[in-house]
Amino acid sequence: MNIKGYYIDLEKAVKIINKNDYKNIVLQVTEGLKHIFKDFVDFFEIKTKANIFISADPCFGACDIPSFFCENTDIDLIIQIGHLPIPEFSESSIPIMFLNAFSDADVSKVVEKALPSIKGKKIGVLTTAQHIHKIDDVKNILFKNNFEPVICKGDKRIDSPGQILGCNFSAATKIVDDVDMYLFIGSGTFHPLGLLLSTKKPVISCDPYTDEVKFKELEDFKDMILRQRYGAIARSKDAKVFGIVVCSKSGQYRFNEVEKIKKLIESKNKKSYILIANFFLSSFLESFRDIDCFVSLGCPRVAIDDYMQYEKPIITPIELEIVLDVKKWDDYKFDEIIN
Amino acid sequence: MNIKGYYIDLEKAVKIINKNDYKNIVLQVTEGLKHIFKDFVDFFEIKTKANIFISADPCFGACDIPSFFCENTDIDLIIQIGHLPIPEFSESSIPIMFLNAFSDADVSKVVEKALPSIKGKKIGVLTTAQHIHKIDDVKNILFKNNFEPVICKGDKRIDSPGQILGCNFSAATKIVDDVDMYLFIGSGTFHPLGLLLSTKKPVISCDPYTDEVKFKELEDFKDMILRQRYGAIARSKDAKVFGIVVCSKSGQYRFNEVEKIKKLIESKNKKSYILIANFFLSSFLESFRDIDCFVSLGCPRVAIDDYMQYEKPIITPIELEIVLDVKKWDDYKFDEIIN
Repeated sequence: MNIKGYYIDLEKAVKIINKNDYKNIVLQVTEGLKHIFKDFVDFFEIKTKANIFISADPCFGACDIPSFFCENTDIDLIIQIGHLPIPEFSESSIPIMFLNAFSDADVSKVVEKALPSIKGKKIGVLTTAQHIHKIDDVKNILFKNNFEPVICKGDKRIDSPGQILGCNFSAATKIVDDVDMYLFIGSGTFHPLGLLLSTKKPVISCDPYTDEVKFKELEDFKDMILRQRYGAIARSKDAKVFGIVVCSKSGQYRFNEVEKIKKLIESKNKKSYILIANFFLSSFLESFRDIDCFVSLGCPRVAIDDYMQYEKPIITPIELEIVLDVKKWDDYKFDEIIN
Repeated sequence: MNIKGYYIDLEKAVKIINKNDYKNIVLQVTEGLKHIFKDFVDFFEIKTKANIFISADPCFGACDIPSFFCENTDIDLIIQIGHLPIPEFSESSIPIMFLNAFSDADVSKVVEKALPSIKGKKIGVLTTAQHIHKIDDVKNILFKNNFEPVICKGDKRIDSPGQILGCNFSAATKIVDDVDMYLFIGSGTFHPLGLLLSTKKPVISCDPYTDEVKFKELEDFKDMILRQRYGAIARSKDAKVFGIVVCSKSGQYRFNEVEKIKKLIESKNKKSYILIANFFLSSFLESFRDIDCFVSLGCPRVAIDDYMQYEKPIITPIELEIVLDVKKWDDYKFDEIIN
């Protein structure tokens, strides 16, 4: 189905629903496409006999599979629209099907526009799920212009070669010694920021929706964020009581890091409490007034994107190590969920 | 353990934790006691070897058991502090233990104060979990003063005789024909409001924390809420597209009512979509711009307490029947989750 500039293989879902005679289906739609929920539901209502339940809870990615169904067995299929699966974390007590939303935005125009700014020979090419099918177009343009595109598949959390997530830049870090710089195809500043901070190499971002090429702006954004993170670390130095916040979402669940972090905090004669949250909202954490600083083990975006919403400092595990003087500021790294 | 005016049997939990050698425990604390989370965690850390994870997600009652653990098998026990169980809904993929918080507030003083206002002979006595152990004190005072207290256990959702929930007044409705009025022991206006609307009989509320006796104020509050609900129903009359919102919380899950409601809406040539939410936030529902009116199948408090937070009208299933002219305004009833 082509809809609002995206191709989404709803027909594939229809076949599976009818073949298995699924009766009650939960449809999770990525935030950016939620406003057209009617088109999806109406399509399934015409082509299947199933009852469609649209998930009203925000869906931030393939890491965010609803897990509330273990007690609600009426639901026999979950369909998540708008993401590629996270292979190692896409299991659920109920079958789950991922339908990516492939953008029809042309990437060649903006990549051509970026060519003059490219310095070096070997160029790492990276993108997000909605442009992943266009990565060969980018590759070919680079070849034609005598560059050597390098495209690599990341770790077990990554579905496709060249794909990055806001929490996983392994497709870039694996090739960091083989490339002179990176070309990112996609919108927003968070992914290129992660690329800059996890690789420490130059990044050019190409937005196929706006045809904007960004390079200098990204460096400025990085500097601004780093100043903010430096401030967060400084504000956490005097903290006596830390709250380690584990996220219970299937793909964000970093349980194994808790003990190490708790021991580290206690080794510095500070107190820590472990919190577990399915949904991160600043107002939820503010109930824990006795905590001076939160260490987020959830989505890396929480500490960075939502920082200003929190009254108390909220930092990443790597930032905690700097706070506790086991790492130096020069060793600053972007928080990733890797495997 | 006696803490901040409550008795909570933490020792019972300690015995069970040590007997079963539970290693990772999630502690859910009712909102009103969350600020003393440290006292609970510190106690368990001294008396057991378990890691304590405090749930940061809001906990609104025994209906609200975290169900995200089906994928997170490290957790081997859930302890919910501050509620009595909802017998029919207190199952979980992980063992769960309820520790009620019994208030040490004296009830006799405020009940004595209420005596002159009591009209009639047979008095239904009702309270909430934190005063349930004082219900015999109330009974005795009424006897001594020549009243006939009537105390009855509600339906399968109710744990103890005389107990009511914000969503279940069956302990009162079962005796509605046997009593002249009701005496409610507890704080807040929502429970007495529900009593008034579900029984249509006079209610006196006695607050053991403030020693306030309320009667007239409750009637005024009821009138104000009824005007607001009348407005919500009026605003929903022209709605063409309805969103039926099912709550996925184990004890609020009214899946069985969806089909009936959907058919009713369609019988009036209006369109409906089914939403499913674990957490009700007005901002989450606002993503569904094409929906004119939401019908909440979650906690009855959502439509009534949070009404002003929603841009679009949000109504209860009974209010929907009035909107669609299958019930009259005179048949208005309070939304309950009963069994």
